[in-house]
Amino acid sequence: MARTQPLSPKGFPDTYGPAARARAQLITRLQEAWYAQGFDPLETPAVETVDALGAFLPDTDRPKGGVFAFATEDDGWLALRYDLTAPLARFYAANQATLPRPFKRSAVGSVWRNDKPGPGRLRQFTQCDVDVVGTANPDADADVLEAICDGLDALGLLPYCSVRVSDRRLLDAALDAAGVAPDSRIDVARALDAVGKIGPQGVRDRLENGRTDASGAFTPGLGLPTDTVDTLLAFLAIPATNDIAAGMAAVEALLPASGAAVAALSTVLERANSGSAAGKLVLDPSIVRGMAYYTGMVFEIVLDAPLTDAKGRPMSIGALGGGGRYDGLVRRFTGQDVPAVGGSIGFDRALIAMERLGLLPSTTSDLVVVAQLPGTAPGLTRSVARTLRAAGLRAEACVGNVSSPGTQLKYADARGAALAVLVGGTEWEQGLVCVKDLALGRALATGATREGWLARPAQTTVPFADLVGTLRAALDGEGGA
Amino acid sequence: MARTQPLSPKGFPDTYGPAARARAQLITRLQEAWYAQGFDPLETPAVETVDALGAFLPDTDRPKGGVFAFATEDDGWLALRYDLTAPLARFYAANQATLPRPFKRSAVGSVWRNDKPGPGRLRQFTQCDVDVVGTANPDADADVLEAICDGLDALGLLPYCSVRVSDRRLLDAALDAAGVAPDSRIDVARALDAVGKIGPQGVRDRLENGRTDASGAFTPGLGLPTDTVDTLLAFLAIPATNDIAAGMAAVEALLPASGAAVAALSTVLERANSGSAAGKLVLDPSIVRGMAYYTGMVFEIVLDAPLTDAKGRPMSIGALGGGGRYDGLVRRFTGQDVPAVGGSIGFDRALIAMERLGLLPSTTSDLVVVAQLPGTAPGLTRSVARTLRAAGLRAEACVGNVSSPGTQLKYADARGAALAVLVGGTEWEQGLVCVKDLALGRALATGATREGWLARPAQTTVPFADLVGTLRAALDGEGGA
Repeated sequence: MARTQPLSPKGFPDTYGPAARARAQLITRLQEAWYAQGFDPLETPAVETVDALGAFLPDTDRPKGGVFAFATEDDGWLALRYDLTAPLARFYAANQATLPRPFKRSAVGSVWRNDKPGPGRLRQFTQCDVDVVGTANPDADADVLEAICDGLDALGLLPYCSVRVSDRRLLDAALDAAGVAPDSRIDVARALDAVGKIGPQGVRDRLENGRTDASGAFTPGLGLPTDTVDTLLAFLAIPATNDIAAGMAAVEALLPASGAAVAALSTVLERANSGSAAGKLVLDPSIVRGMAYYTGMVFEIVLDAPLTDAKGRPMSIGALGGGGRYDGLVRRFTGQDVPAVGGSIGFDRALIAMERLGLLPSTTSDLVVVAQLPGTAPGLTRSVARTLRAAGLRAEACVGNVSSPGTQLKYADARGAALAVLVGGTEWEQGLVCVKDLALGRALATGATREGWLARPAQTTVPFADLVGTLRAALDGEGGA
Repeated sequence: MARTQPLSPKGFPDTYGPAARARAQLITRLQEAWYAQGFDPLETPAVETVDALGAFLPDTDRPKGGVFAFATEDDGWLALRYDLTAPLARFYAANQATLPRPFKRSAVGSVWRNDKPGPGRLRQFTQCDVDVVGTANPDADADVLEAICDGLDALGLLPYCSVRVSDRRLLDAALDAAGVAPDSRIDVARALDAVGKIGPQGVRDRLENGRTDASGAFTPGLGLPTDTVDTLLAFLAIPATNDIAAGMAAVEALLPASGAAVAALSTVLERANSGSAAGKLVLDPSIVRGMAYYTGMVFEIVLDAPLTDAKGRPMSIGALGGGGRYDGLVRRFTGQDVPAVGGSIGFDRALIAMERLGLLPSTTSDLVVVAQLPGTAPGLTRSVARTLRAAGLRAEACVGNVSSPGTQLKYADARGAALAVLVGGTEWEQGLVCVKDLALGRALATGATREGWLARPAQTTVPFADLVGTLRAALDGEGGA
């Protein structure tokens, strides 16, 4: 029989062991922070009808492009959700009669994008969203910005980040001033949104005659006249600043017609500049956000700390998330505008940043493996492991090859266990057990000092009654080392 | 513009609020129990290649039947995973050189089945699995049975359940004794597996001349002779018992050739009859399990407590999970048998049981909504809410319609908040805030006694310095009520 290759599809990685545990713990922390702030969790399925997703697809020219879609007998075309906002709009539209208004929900879950897989480009990733649906109150915008900062704080990332804020209406004022026609605004906004990646000259090329990227691929230009492009680039060039009043003055100086938008955004930023968001907000007109559905405030979470990869080379991972106000998303279901504002943390990118910054929860092993000497009664090691668990330790009996203590200690070491307990033989008859410090052995093998060896015995024999205390002391020593 | 219906596809429900929070909390409890027992979490993607899923599909006659599959440009046919075992086999085969042996992993995640949607039949649901891969040691079987019982205990379900155990080799002995040909054994096993649903006569009909179900649909029979069917039904009829020795004797009396299988299963049950599994294991030859891949011990989690639906009518939800030993699953990738044993808890069914048995975590509201009197300074309510959160309470400012205290209290009530705090006005100038007990108001509205009303004021004014203590006392009173 031909063997099947044990491959997962490209762009769909596995996560195992300490990394998977860290993910679960961090997600719980984030959810607790948002729950405390009054957001109620909503879980929607992975799958939506293509109709329900329709208006939210990344590229409206290809109705099924960008998503993984499949036909079913009963429900027509279904697709894996592309983000958590489209399911929210569908859920709100279906349930608005019974939901409180405003409706505050959090959501953490996988989303799927049918992009071409590439290095570091995931096709399944985890988004963490908060939204407030049903109010235009600027305090709702402020609440979302605070929730985003509380979420970053729960992850330990807040000191390394800022939140760059602008407003779609400032962009509109710039597009008005530059004389850009309504039907090309989305394309122009996408080109402007790329300024962080391709720089001002790259944006100019895409707005004028086209641009050839590093791979040699040519993107045709939008053919805008030079003075139009000059105005747009002057708007993008307004310096980002956390002196909100000064930044707003610079916007109004360039765009005299932007007064109402400036006032609206100023109100949001004043309200938001408190709690965890205090001092974290930066006015940055170059924040455009590509999605067509934003109607007011927009923001991106930017990592300010420089990152280096495992080889010490500078690396860039892009925005850690973003969001904004979108007042039209529910209309296609209900026929009415429903004011809404929300934000999202890209969990996988946040994890990369945390890993590079040394912020992940400790992966010091807390596992105790209970091994047996030859001739030990069946069930004894599992019973000892159970006793240790009842005392709050993480413990398992070796249930594989128990033919010798050596095979079991080798297993415990492969497992990354901190400690092994050997039970059986004449020691057990005398009420004694042997404790081996496996983490110490591994540390010595990788160059720990002889002093460490002398200070901490790699093996000790203790009365069974003292076992839990001995193990706790050894684990505490390792946790602190 | 035609409006889109805000529908989710059939069989894909949403979960919101207290129900979603209970799910997350219970999953965390389960994961902690399994982590303590030495299982390491593994997260695999929702999507696998159809090739990798191949041998695990529910119906090998329809390679893409039963799953949601879609073609991609880069990876050919992909499918949403049908269970968590197929991804485990793929992961183990790909990584066995670096994994400890045995490899103990837990997994909690969604799986998808492309079944015809029907009442209560989900097409996306959550499975919770533990497996030990790479050893034939019966202590591994025992460890899995203990983990399943520990998991049920973490959910609070263990007192209401038993674990019904048999062995595929006992079934083989019965099929041998009955003279069933090898190539029809899977179909026969499926018919026997249905005994819990269709009863012994239903099984006889399916094994002999065919069966018409309640809907009038006819399933053709397998055409087995009567004496063959008699032997098989005699095997199924061996009474389930937690007197393992007596049960084993009954099996050997019927099937003299089953000695080795009886001895192997007896060893597993002796080893497993400890810890949380003690007294929970029932020998039950009618446990067959439909999946072709089991090779040894098999089990099902059975809810012993009778359930009634919301109208008090008896209801049945089937097995809460199951599992067993499967020594051949990795072979199609590696060419070698890898002994493995595992089990699964069906989380959604477990939740239904818990809901009907009153075992779900309390949904008493812990939310405090901070509302404002007219003219209150912007930001004050959000600041007060933040102070309450810093003290460990769940609190939000009203960020919707704040035109009057009435609109805000109406919101707080719609939100299911326990308490509202009113800030602003002359009270605030005097350092006072007003606390309203919303849960009490709702309780009175639904028939609480006048004594309750008298004992607990619905509204009280307290110094801001005493606010946290006042709210804590009120919340404790409600939690205990």
